[in-house]
Amino acid sequence: MFIDRLDARITSTRSILCAGLDPTLDVVPQELITAQVRRGGSSRDILGRVLDHYVHVALDAVAGRVAAIKPNAAFFEQFGGPGYDALISLSAYAKQLGIPMILDAKRGDIGSTAQAYANAYFHPLSFLGEPIPKAECDALTLNPFLGFDTLAPFLAACRDSGKGVFLLVKTSNPGSSDIQNLQLHDSTRTVLDTVANFVAKEGHTFLGTCGLSSLGAVVGATYPGEAANLRAAMPNAIFLVPGFGAQGGSAKSAVSGFTPSGRGGIVNMSRGIFSLSNKLSITD
Amino acid sequence: MFIDRLDARITSTRSILCAGLDPTLDVVPQELITAQVRRGGSSRDILGRVLDHYVHVALDAVAGRVAAIKPNAAFFEQFGGPGYDALISLSAYAKQLGIPMILDAKRGDIGSTAQAYANAYFHPLSFLGEPIPKAECDALTLNPFLGFDTLAPFLAACRDSGKGVFLLVKTSNPGSSDIQNLQLHDSTRTVLDTVANFVAKEGHTFLGTCGLSSLGAVVGATYPGEAANLRAAMPNAIFLVPGFGAQGGSAKSAVSGFTPSGRGGIVNMSRGIFSLSNKLSITD
Repeated sequence: MFIDRLDARITSTRSILCAGLDPTLDVVPQELITAQVRRGGSSRDILGRVLDHYVHVALDAVAGRVAAIKPNAAFFEQFGGPGYDALISLSAYAKQLGIPMILDAKRGDIGSTAQAYANAYFHPLSFLGEPIPKAECDALTLNPFLGFDTLAPFLAACRDSGKGVFLLVKTSNPGSSDIQNLQLHDSTRTVLDTVANFVAKEGHTFLGTCGLSSLGAVVGATYPGEAANLRAAMPNAIFLVPGFGAQGGSAKSAVSGFTPSGRGGIVNMSRGIFSLSNKLSITD
Repeated sequence: MFIDRLDARITSTRSILCAGLDPTLDVVPQELITAQVRRGGSSRDILGRVLDHYVHVALDAVAGRVAAIKPNAAFFEQFGGPGYDALISLSAYAKQLGIPMILDAKRGDIGSTAQAYANAYFHPLSFLGEPIPKAECDALTLNPFLGFDTLAPFLAACRDSGKGVFLLVKTSNPGSSDIQNLQLHDSTRTVLDTVANFVAKEGHTFLGTCGLSSLGAVVGATYPGEAANLRAAMPNAIFLVPGFGAQGGSAKSAVSGFTPSGRGGIVNMSRGIFSLSNKLSITD
């Protein structure tokens, strides 16, 4: 199961950090671009090699120190085809190194379209008998707004294919209260409580031997009080905690949704990784 | 503005239909695959040519008869790199033919990540002084769950770059009530009313000369009563209406959110397009 692989990895790396690998041209070292320009080819080819090289170098730099990696799909999609290819390449390299990859895609769609997203990121594809490279990942972030029926193909993959899901419950941004914290008619609950209840209830189906579930929750570091309440509501859920560092969440806030024994979550760090990658030696 | 271009196109084509172009290998004619196999290359190359050829043929078939096209990103992402390249190719061909393309991506993310999605689908990219092909579209569907602050980079593009946004308000699937119809504490409103109020209020900033706004709403054909109420709540919003046909929405239901003069929306048809494409002649 996904959750047992992640838990074992937390133990072996002694790390609860998750590295956000989100390429922008600002953070790619100029010498890496220069080296690829020297090799020639079209701008598209050069961009493709730059991004591909960057994700390999960045992953090498963090590989032994993090429990998982969390590329955000947006940062790859912004580069068009070369970006999407780099995400595929990152996925293959993470698999080769044995590092769980959580694709932060925040997808949400209905029926056959939800199945197509599950196909895109959870299932291999073969065509004419040969595998087609894809950005297959170990776990996905998903958005619950379209309803719980829309999660079915992803939860089926948690059950049958060892995948994991992190459902957005409370995001780290200032406006997260607009929808997530709307008070419901019984006045004691909010929208996010409804999502948390779903995670708690359905999560039992995906419990690993470590005692946590492969159905997890995204709970921002910037709302520590809510994180503690959400831990009480979802005792077995693994929390993916964004918002630590650059967004203002402190280390103490980041673990406020952890279990009393200091487990039950991984803390994402994205912008810190950038400065790390700037110190890397670039070999071509 | 996006809305004026769409409105003009509705008038010139005398069509309120939006064609969902969602490739699956089931719907691609076998002879198209056979023709590309004959040309040789790797499985990946063949798949790329099949998908690329399919989107061109499908778009040619519907071009004169629809107000817009609405590819769903999931159906392209499921094919990995070749799929993403086909989406880029479709985007370029739609632009060449002058057909508005609404990318049904249902994206939603925060801060710099939201900006990266806006970059991905609304803004051109150049690298080393040359343009990099991307799936640039005229309008995007967006998910409001993360909060209204997360829409800022997309709304900026509506204002400054002539783009459009369709915010998910009421989706067409059976489980759409799980979150969207939760009753709020004042008992007269629901979650979806909160989103509709945002669309109504913010939409005034993006009004076109046609009287409608470039900030629109996704309102499923399967809930006609709610669509009529939502029209009252969002008098100037353009509605993108999924759920007609295969999902059970009737033609009458599909237009129940339209204005009294029969405008104010476009109705998506996806699965009907598939059977149409099967009748196409394949030329290589």
